[in-house]
Amino acid sequence: MPASERPGGRTARVREAVFAAALSGLAERGYASLTIEDIAERAGVHKTTIYRRWGTLAQLVAAAVADLSETTVPVPDTGALESDLHEMARSIVALVTSEPGRTIIAALFSDAVRTPEVAAIKREFYAARYALTDVVVRRAVERGEIPERASAADLLAAVAAPIYYRLLVADLPVDRAVADRAAAAALAAARAGALNA
Amino acid sequence: MPASERPGGRTARVREAVFAAALSGLAERGYASLTIEDIAERAGVHKTTIYRRWGTLAQLVAAAVADLSETTVPVPDTGALESDLHEMARSIVALVTSEPGRTIIAALFSDAVRTPEVAAIKREFYAARYALTDVVVRRAVERGEIPERASAADLLAAVAAPIYYRLLVADLPVDRAVADRAAAAALAAARAGALNA
Repeated sequence: MPASERPGGRTARVREAVFAAALSGLAERGYASLTIEDIAERAGVHKTTIYRRWGTLAQLVAAAVADLSETTVPVPDTGALESDLHEMARSIVALVTSEPGRTIIAALFSDAVRTPEVAAIKREFYAARYALTDVVVRRAVERGEIPERASAADLLAAVAAPIYYRLLVADLPVDRAVADRAAAAALAAARAGALNA
Repeated sequence: MPASERPGGRTARVREAVFAAALSGLAERGYASLTIEDIAERAGVHKTTIYRRWGTLAQLVAAAVADLSETTVPVPDTGALESDLHEMARSIVALVTSEPGRTIIAALFSDAVRTPEVAAIKREFYAARYALTDVVVRRAVERGEIPERASAADLLAAVAAPIYYRLLVADLPVDRAVADRAAAAALAAARAGALNA
């Protein structure tokens, strides 16, 4: 990779500054009032830099959200499904309860209903997360921990669902205990074959 | 009960017309643009009738949403937890995929983030649902189908969570198969003790 793209290089610094500006803009104003001009000003870069690199506002926001999630919810590989799922659930809780996570989720979820671009960002983001974490389930099947027919998508959704349900639907607090219970319930369901494809 | 409040009586008809007007107004305009005057006009009643009976817009919308849910998601009593949970999951899917259900959920979820009254309506609504369906779990414990320590709130949330997750987060379709899988996974988790309090 060229020196400028290495962590700390000029391109990497621009990327970081632009993503931070996009996320704080999203949190403060919501997608509908966000502009590339505003993000460029916050990041201290020229707007043509943003247009050249990300094309559209929607693509920039999608990239910034994906980047935040990749850095805060890494794909675990602890050697056992149980601890992998607990780690995933705890990272999700850490993300959604963090200041940037909370405001971004609020913005994405409130605007998605009436803004097709935001709905698309959200949809692509979660589809990408599945593609990324699929390997956690494949490894578990290879180790013989769950039935071969277990649906990776359903198992991963089962870990995240109770956390998002409390957050978005029931409006109840989420913490480490909620994460651990979500992971344990998902694992029990998978072992019982209730999540087979 | 006085004749006017019986189904088909004048009070019952007014109630029905006002609830229908509140829900269609909510679906079309969102909470922020909804007014009691507008609902009164849609329902063909005087606005003082609404003020006298429901007090505020928030209380009226809360009552209308609760009424919709009570009529479309009845509390099952089939004699076995498994069939009770499948019935509940299927009713939830039927509600959230129905035309009024979809628009109301969209309205409640998009506005809740920035409107404290809507957040309160949503919170109270789901708390009331738990209180109502609690009995399903109590009966199952009495019949010895799940551990005595099973958390009713967590079991009910486990049934609903995968449905709402697909709907609100992953943006995937929900149908009867999704409902049945949610019910089966929740039951497996409860039986394994993963949902104990």
